[in-house]
Amino acid sequence: MAPVIKLNSGYDMPQVGFGLWKVDNAVAADVVYNAIKAGYRLFDGACDYGNEVECGKGVARAIAEGIVKREELFIVSKLWNTFHDGDKVEPIVRKQLADWGIDYFDLYLIHFPVALEYVDPSVRYPPGWHYQGDEIRPGKATIQETWTAMESLVDKGLSRSIGVSNFQAQLIYDLLRYARIRPATLQIEHHPYLVQQELLNLAKREGIAVTAYSSFGPASFLEFNMKHAVALTPLIENDTIKAIANKHGRTPSQVLLRWATQRGLAIIPKTTRTELMVSNLQSVDFDLTEEDIATITAFDRNLRFNQPSNYFPTDLLWIFG
Amino acid sequence: MAPVIKLNSGYDMPQVGFGLWKVDNAVAADVVYNAIKAGYRLFDGACDYGNEVECGKGVARAIAEGIVKREELFIVSKLWNTFHDGDKVEPIVRKQLADWGIDYFDLYLIHFPVALEYVDPSVRYPPGWHYQGDEIRPGKATIQETWTAMESLVDKGLSRSIGVSNFQAQLIYDLLRYARIRPATLQIEHHPYLVQQELLNLAKREGIAVTAYSSFGPASFLEFNMKHAVALTPLIENDTIKAIANKHGRTPSQVLLRWATQRGLAIIPKTTRTELMVSNLQSVDFDLTEEDIATITAFDRNLRFNQPSNYFPTDLLWIFG
Repeated sequence: MAPVIKLNSGYDMPQVGFGLWKVDNAVAADVVYNAIKAGYRLFDGACDYGNEVECGKGVARAIAEGIVKREELFIVSKLWNTFHDGDKVEPIVRKQLADWGIDYFDLYLIHFPVALEYVDPSVRYPPGWHYQGDEIRPGKATIQETWTAMESLVDKGLSRSIGVSNFQAQLIYDLLRYARIRPATLQIEHHPYLVQQELLNLAKREGIAVTAYSSFGPASFLEFNMKHAVALTPLIENDTIKAIANKHGRTPSQVLLRWATQRGLAIIPKTTRTELMVSNLQSVDFDLTEEDIATITAFDRNLRFNQPSNYFPTDLLWIFG
Repeated sequence: MAPVIKLNSGYDMPQVGFGLWKVDNAVAADVVYNAIKAGYRLFDGACDYGNEVECGKGVARAIAEGIVKREELFIVSKLWNTFHDGDKVEPIVRKQLADWGIDYFDLYLIHFPVALEYVDPSVRYPPGWHYQGDEIRPGKATIQETWTAMESLVDKGLSRSIGVSNFQAQLIYDLLRYARIRPATLQIEHHPYLVQQELLNLAKREGIAVTAYSSFGPASFLEFNMKHAVALTPLIENDTIKAIANKHGRTPSQVLLRWATQRGLAIIPKTTRTELMVSNLQSVDFDLTEEDIATITAFDRNLRFNQPSNYFPTDLLWIFG
């Protein structure tokens, strides 16, 4: 059976899930439906991806056809920056649940540790980074205020588990000083060029499961024309990765995913091609050697891609500083 | 005259100061006294440096001899990790002021964003990182609780300005959500191998002055036998730095310091040799070209040295993750 990670909330989370970032609205319902048929149970969505209504339709169709039950799915969503005010969290979660057509999330994350000024969903949804034009308007909410509101989602049964995304270690340590309900997961960019071993160590010590996004490294960002992503050989074309893949009779993508899961992380690869969906899911069906893992880990160059200035506001480029 | 930086608290801070980390107790009084005679007015101390009594004696001697008045000095100290609880801040500041023999600090910083369990000064002082043996005991205080106590130091006249040290961007942004009194300064490791441009941009945008420590890069850490510090050519022996120094008829050290001050940062070099005290102080008496500055800035490799595991607890190596 598919491996699961036991969260500190008591729930099991599938270790291999399906990421919904950049899944086009036009195909999102079909992609989710096909992914469920391929065996996926975890879907990693977000307000900001702008496709929650469509993803929900894929889920509804699979449930209506008896392929899966709601309780067999693990649906993840995220709180956007403009909804950090304590009194804005529950209303937006209820809207997101309505968009999905479900009555609880399995996991709900603070998407970024960056409170921005509230934007009413009737004005613009998803609200994005900018207030209008190029203007960034910081919000007033502290992370503690937001986290307290996140905790009340658990109390009210609106999300079974809660967590954070894109948080660095210092902020996590601070959050753990005041958290009544500890974060169940931390979602971060993670691939051989960005291993972040010390952050992983902190998460492990504190019992926080880690989900890797952008497991293929620069590949996820080529479309944004990032100079340093384009300049690097894609990891799936790297000779060392290819050699390890050949040795195991697997694909380079499977090697990159297995490297993460054998190190204990959850993964959320995305693809719209059914054969790759299956291939990604089957990446847990073999084992790398310890030497393979060490070789891949040694790729680390502390190179972060999720900050291309053409979609990330210049005013906020400090976020991982 | 010596350049100053106008802080957001309204006070002027000398741009060139004297760092007291690793100044031996046996010589600290003389070093401070000599530094005052050499023209230094800012002294950057900390509970953790374990030499505040001795440094205070140097100050007292210089004042007694009429070389300087208290109000001409700018004395900086720092809150150690074990004193983060809200009710522990004022008592320890009063002790530190008594150690220095003064009745206010010009600037008082949170040394690290890491609350540790309280250790009574009568038990061990300075308390260091470990509770006992190798044991690290996290404290309960949030940064907000600690910052609120820091603000009350200003209200009570115990410190004119307050700030933070070793904070990363996310935590600073969060702190700015709740700060009644904004941090006047941020003190960070900063040298050509660790430029941290985005963090500097955030500080600038938010009106927070930045003080660089370890301006000479790996040189400050050689004594700890750090592998990556030892492996690198010391910056002051680097051919490019030497060539720029020769061109201006200055020393490599002066070039490294001037690079920082021309970029707007304050610096706190330390030396026990009088001629170097003067040389460091005079590093503001010439100007690098914009091309020189760009050349030096291009050394950046995001390489941090202030984390050698032989003095920094392994359990806390996540701190800059």
